[in-house]
Order: sequence, then C-alpha cells, then structure tokens
Amino acid sequence: MTTSTQPPVAEVIDEMALEARAAGLQMARSSASERTAALHAIADVIEAESSVIVSANAIDLYNADQNGITGAMRNRLELDASGVAKLAVAVREVADQPDPLGGLEDEVVRPNGLRVARMRIPLGVIAMIYESRPNVTADAAALCLKAGNAVILRGGSEAIHTNRAIAGAVAMGLSTSALPQQAVQLIPVTDRGAIDVLLTKEDEVDLVIPRGGEGLIRAVTSRSRIPVLQHYKGVCHVYIDESAPLDRASDIAHNAKVQRPGVCNAAETLLFHSAAAVHLPKIAARLVADGVELRGCPRTVSIVEGAGISAEPATDEDWSEEYLDLILSVRVVDDLEQAVDHIARYGSGHTEAIVTDDPAAAEIFVGAIQSSTVVVNASTRFADGGELGLGAEIGISTSKLHAYGPMGANELTTRKFVVLGEGQVRS
Amino acid sequence: MTTSTQPPVAEVIDEMALEARAAGLQMARSSASERTAALHAIADVIEAESSVIVSANAIDLYNADQNGITGAMRNRLELDASGVAKLAVAVREVADQPDPLGGLEDEVVRPNGLRVARMRIPLGVIAMIYESRPNVTADAAALCLKAGNAVILRGGSEAIHTNRAIAGAVAMGLSTSALPQQAVQLIPVTDRGAIDVLLTKEDEVDLVIPRGGEGLIRAVTSRSRIPVLQHYKGVCHVYIDESAPLDRASDIAHNAKVQRPGVCNAAETLLFHSAAAVHLPKIAARLVADGVELRGCPRTVSIVEGAGISAEPATDEDWSEEYLDLILSVRVVDDLEQAVDHIARYGSGHTEAIVTDDPAAAEIFVGAIQSSTVVVNASTRFADGGELGLGAEIGISTSKLHAYGPMGANELTTRKFVVLGEGQVRS
Repeated sequence: MTTSTQPPVAEVIDEMALEARAAGLQMARSSASERTAALHAIADVIEAESSVIVSANAIDLYNADQNGITGAMRNRLELDASGVAKLAVAVREVADQPDPLGGLEDEVVRPNGLRVARMRIPLGVIAMIYESRPNVTADAAALCLKAGNAVILRGGSEAIHTNRAIAGAVAMGLSTSALPQQAVQLIPVTDRGAIDVLLTKEDEVDLVIPRGGEGLIRAVTSRSRIPVLQHYKGVCHVYIDESAPLDRASDIAHNAKVQRPGVCNAAETLLFHSAAAVHLPKIAARLVADGVELRGCPRTVSIVEGAGISAEPATDEDWSEEYLDLILSVRVVDDLEQAVDHIARYGSGHTEAIVTDDPAAAEIFVGAIQSSTVVVNASTRFADGGELGLGAEIGISTSKLHAYGPMGANELTTRKFVVLGEGQVRS
Repeated sequence: MTTSTQPPVAEVIDEMALEARAAGLQMARSSASERTAALHAIADVIEAESSVIVSANAIDLYNADQNGITGAMRNRLELDASGVAKLAVAVREVADQPDPLGGLEDEVVRPNGLRVARMRIPLGVIAMIYESRPNVTADAAALCLKAGNAVILRGGSEAIHTNRAIAGAVAMGLSTSALPQQAVQLIPVTDRGAIDVLLTKEDEVDLVIPRGGEGLIRAVTSRSRIPVLQHYKGVCHVYIDESAPLDRASDIAHNAKVQRPGVCNAAETLLFHSAAAVHLPKIAARLVADGVELRGCPRTVSIVEGAGISAEPATDEDWSEEYLDLILSVRVVDDLEQAVDHIARYGSGHTEAIVTDDPAAAEIFVGAIQSSTVVVNASTRFADGGELGLGAEIGISTSKLHAYGPMGANELTTRKFVVLGEGQVRS
C-alpha cells in the first residue's frame, strides 16, 4: 500500500462514481462483439500476468500469517498459478455466453396501431462490496461488462494486493478493447470510510451487491441509499417423502449436508415423512459415521436412539439455524403439508429439496415452496449459478425483488419499453 | 371515523402484517381460476354497492370542502356513480388478463441430466401507500390478487370514507371466493404512525409501493426497511429530428405538452435538431396559442422572437424541472448525439420521444436512450400501463431495479428456479 499523500477518501469516491456513470453510459452503447472481445482480452492478460498476481497474493498471505489468519479464511485468500488459470477460464466462459442485451421482445400491437415491445438494457453502474476471495474481482468484472454495466469494486483489505493485481490485469485488457477504461474500477484504498461515501452515490450507482457474511450485508443495507441485493443465510431443507427410496434419500441427504458443509446451499435440516421414518436409522448412521452431529425432534431422538445412535434434542432455535458445519437438525413430520409449513416458518427462502417417487407429491412441493430454488430428487448443493447454467454467478438473492436465487449476467440488466408509432397522439 | 377506544396503532399493524403474510402463503397456492373468479365477484359487489361508495365519497368531499381543498386535489377525490362503474370495469379487465403465474419456462438440461427451469411466483405481501385518488384502492387490490399476492392498503386520510367503502366491497367479494379474506386489508386508521410501523415489517412485507408526490416517496424510501419501488419525477423530452415532418412534429409536441400537462408522462422539454429549427416558429406559435409559456436556449429565443413569439431565456434549472404545467423548455441542439447527451444529463429516466422519418436515427435513439420508455413517432403520453397493454398499472418505476416503467400484474411477481433430478448429487 502506498503511504504517500493521497486525496481525501470522499474526493476519490466522488471522482470514481462520476467516471463510472460516464463509463456506464458508454458501455450501454457498446456492441455485443465489443464486450465479448474485451472479455477475451482480459482473460489473456490475466493468464499473461499470472506470476504478478501470484506474487501479489504472496504479500497478502504473508500479512494474513502475520495477523494470525488461518483455516478457511486463509484458504479463501490463497491464489496459486492454477487458481489464476481458472480465473481466466471463468472470464472466457462469461465471454462466450449468449449476449443478454438488445433486441425487441414481447412485442404487441395496440388497437391504435402502436407497436409496444421490451428491450433488455444494462442496469448502469454496479457497486460490488466483498470479502476475502479475490476471484470475485475477476468474476464480477466479467459479469458486469458482459451485461453492459460499469462496476466499482471494493474487496476486503486482507486481499488488497491480489485484488489490485487482478484489477490491473483487467485494466490492461480493457485498454486494448473498445470499451471505456473506467468501466471497471477498484477502490484503491482500504479505508472503511470509502464504503460509507460510496453508499450515498444514489445518482451515480444503480445497485449495490454485498457479498460476504451476514454482518457485512446488514451493515451495507442499513447504510445504503442505493438499492441493495441481499443474500442472507441459507437454511436449506431436504424433505424425504413417503415414497422416497432409501438409497436416493440417503445419497441426497448425505451430499447436501456433508459434501461441503460451510456453504449456503448445504442442508441444515432434514425432514422425514412419518411413513419414511423407517429410513431414519440407516441415514442417520451414515451421517454420524461421517462426523455429523444430529439434533432431533422427540420422534427423531426416540427412533435413532432405538437404533443406538445419539442425537441431541433440537430447540426451537435449531430449526432456523444456519450451522455451516457438520450439524444437522432432523424432524419427523406427519405429511407433506406439515413439511411445507415447517419450511415456510423456519426456512430462509434459499433452497429446498424433496426426495420422492410420487409425481403428485413433487408437484405439490414445487408449487407450494416459495424459496428461490426448489429441487426434486437432487442435492440442494446444485443451487449455484455455475451448476444451474448461468455460467458464473455474482451472488444469490434471497429477497424476491429484481432477482431471486443465483444471479448471472442476465440479472444485471433491466428492460425498457420501446414504443413504435406513426404519429399517434392521445385523445 | 370511530372515536371509541382502539388498540394502539403498533398492535393493529403487527396483527395486519402477520395476517397478510399468512394470507400471502395461501394466495401463492391459489389457482388461476380461483383468482379470476374472485376478481369478478369483487367487480360485481363494487357495482352493487355503488350507492354506498358514492355516499361515502360525499362525506370525504364534504370534509374536503370544509378543509378548503379545491381544484385538482378535489377532482381526484371525487367519485360518482359512473366513476364507480369504471372501477368495476377495471377490475374485470385485470381479471381477464392472462394469468402471470406458474408453469415452467426457460428450461435447459444440464450435462448431468438435471432439468433447470424457472417458475413465476408471487412476491408475497405488498404494501401500497397512496394519496387522494380512491380508485387506487380497487386497482391495487385487483392487480395484487391477480398476481397471487396479499396487499396492505394505506390511502390518504382525505379519502378514508371512500377507501373504506371500496375496501368493504372488496372484502364482500373475497368472502364469496376461494381466496383468503385477509388477502386485501385497508389500514382503518389515518394515524401517520401506522406507516412508520408498517415500514419496519421487513419479515412480513416484501415490497412497498408509494404512489403520490415526491415528498411521500422520499419519506417512505428514507424510513423503509422493506424494498421500495420508486416513481420519481417525469422530465420527459420530445426530440424533433432533422427529417421530422412539420405536421407530425407539431401534433406530437402539442399533444405531449398540452393534452394533460399535470401528469408525469407529459413533455417538459422540446429538443430541435438544428436542421429542424425551421419548424420552431410554427410549433411554438401553436403551443403559445394554447397557453404554453416557453423557456428557450439562446438559439430558440432568437428564432421565436424573430417570428414575433415571446420566450423567456431558460436557466440551467429549467432543463431538469418537472413543470407539471403549461410551461415548456425548448432547446436547439446540433444533432442527434447532442440530444441524447442532453437527455442523459437532464432527464429523469421516465419517457422520451423522437419524431423522425429516418429509420437509422430512430434506431440510434432507441438504443442510446436509457429511459424506461422510448417512443418513436408518438406522444410521450402513451407511457401508461393501460396504453401499453398492461391492462392496469400499479405505478411507474423510474429506478431500474426489479421493474422499469409502467408496472402491471406481471411486475408483482418474481421467478424461482425449479430443478428436476433423478438422484443427482454434487461431486
């Protein structure tokens, strides 16, 4: 970090916001082929600058070690040459997605002859505020550019050198393209006041996307004058229906909980139809064997203890807890309706799965569950932009406004009305 | 209004919000035919209760007269038998629109065999806060129900008797239907504290739509913990291109300014390509003859004064002013690019029109203008849900998030992901 005299943070952010707005207007007039070519150029520079990025990351890792950062946080920060290569691959994947912009759709002709259609346009300027994981710098830049937006990036202070190196590569790629240089800007300082100023730029910034822990998201939401897309916790459920075959139920429950317990689309609660509770001992035994701690309703505790497996009694708080760990709450419900009610009451609107062989039960579940992703006979872990075919994701929205669930480039756009007339006036 | 002892406002709102959430969950599971039938039942009761509604309106009008309310505000408040009949017609029109919900769309099959699709679902619970015009009570109820939502209505105190009578008719209609009785609730008190409490109900309410003056919208936005859809001012432009024929340019400019100057889709600024400025004297003369006051750039003032028409010099403030009156700012620009730049700088993102005979100019204008409605060769006054074929509108969004431009029933929905598998897990 430079320690020379710098302009006050407010001036830096003022200037960046104005430049972003101007760049956004230029981006809105760029062509699909210009955006695609720019993204390929950026991917090429990221590859070419791999050693620079890895060296910058080494500084962040050194500082992290000095600060006693360990475990998952240090892992998220680390970026080696193969990690940089993956960044470039991800940017090329976004480049090669279908273009989300332009074209007239949903055209109707009104009785007075007016042709009314919709055209997909960029949101304008997006501010992305994120923690740790420096790959967000490349992913967010790529998705925002793909959708014709300008973006202001604010990564975590622990990744500042890595983020600067990646943003430098993005800037070099942009400089060889037809897109405006200021379409991607990284806030160069780690001063926390920068975020507060940024969140007042309602005239220049159209959307704020915070990505990180609940604390970050709540802090951004409470201070922002700009609309915020929220990704709160994922209290995801797997419901084992009456007709669920044991093997499939076991595989899905196990995968949803154990494969990667620390992420938002991991399952936190397992619900059993009372007629499927016969499967509970075998499924519980497999989970416990892989280190999962069970917290059960009275029926669950009684059934698993009868099979010699221990389970703590679940408290009311357990049902709405996002453990992000090898802990699972388990409840036996009377039927599908009670499962739906449980999810409506305790769920977080993220992802819920049903395991069933009964098409009617699957249809009821899909219709009744109001979460952003509803899964039939597969793991909740598929609730992810890449897995769902969005190419990459800029976040997962758990609030229903604008976008719901994993968000790709398409979710960084809006639609305007286009009205084509021949001189019509209103009478 | 009753003056008997009432529970404190906070308790009333707490209870309403919880009931709305429960009703919203029931609404989400209602069928299209149940929603359609309920809307027809409501329209029937509105017609049958016409005299009750008109009598209630007489009380509001009496109070308005006592309070010295006159002019446009009193006009907006007034509802006679033919006005009530129109309410019923509007509700039936919403009823007969295509159902916005359900069905799987945009389905793709992933390499692992997962079928990924989207399903349109209701937002949940909508709070509508509005002033004056009591027809919003019926329109908003109809649109929210059509889209499978529950709604909490809060009309202006000046229309409280009319709103209660209309809400009473809606409740009677609902009571004969399969939809939950609490799907439409009118806040029965005029206490301003009710709004403050309502805006904290982020767990029960998904969206707030304020409809009224800028003061109302800013006050709601600044206090709300719930996402707010904003409808700020309409500084709409008509751009007369180089190739515009005089008659069409004159008709559109005149209609956009004069036909109803007090509404948000009326034009506030007229831009002339320098080569079209020859039309300025005739168009200006027609506007001035109908009482329009002109405020011009130096070129405009010089041209119209040369033709014996008076125009004030426009200040920089004029270009971003929403007059809502028979006042029009006029500027001669060098070319289409300068017109686009002017609109980007001074416009409000509402509606802009081009008058042209040149398809290339029209295409550039449509592509470059980022406003919610872009019009070619027609009046800006068509930027209205009814005119654009949405059936009815619940508001016009001038912010790009979630919806942009006039909002109908479709804009009161969102989409969830539906993932159909055969036992897939992530590796």
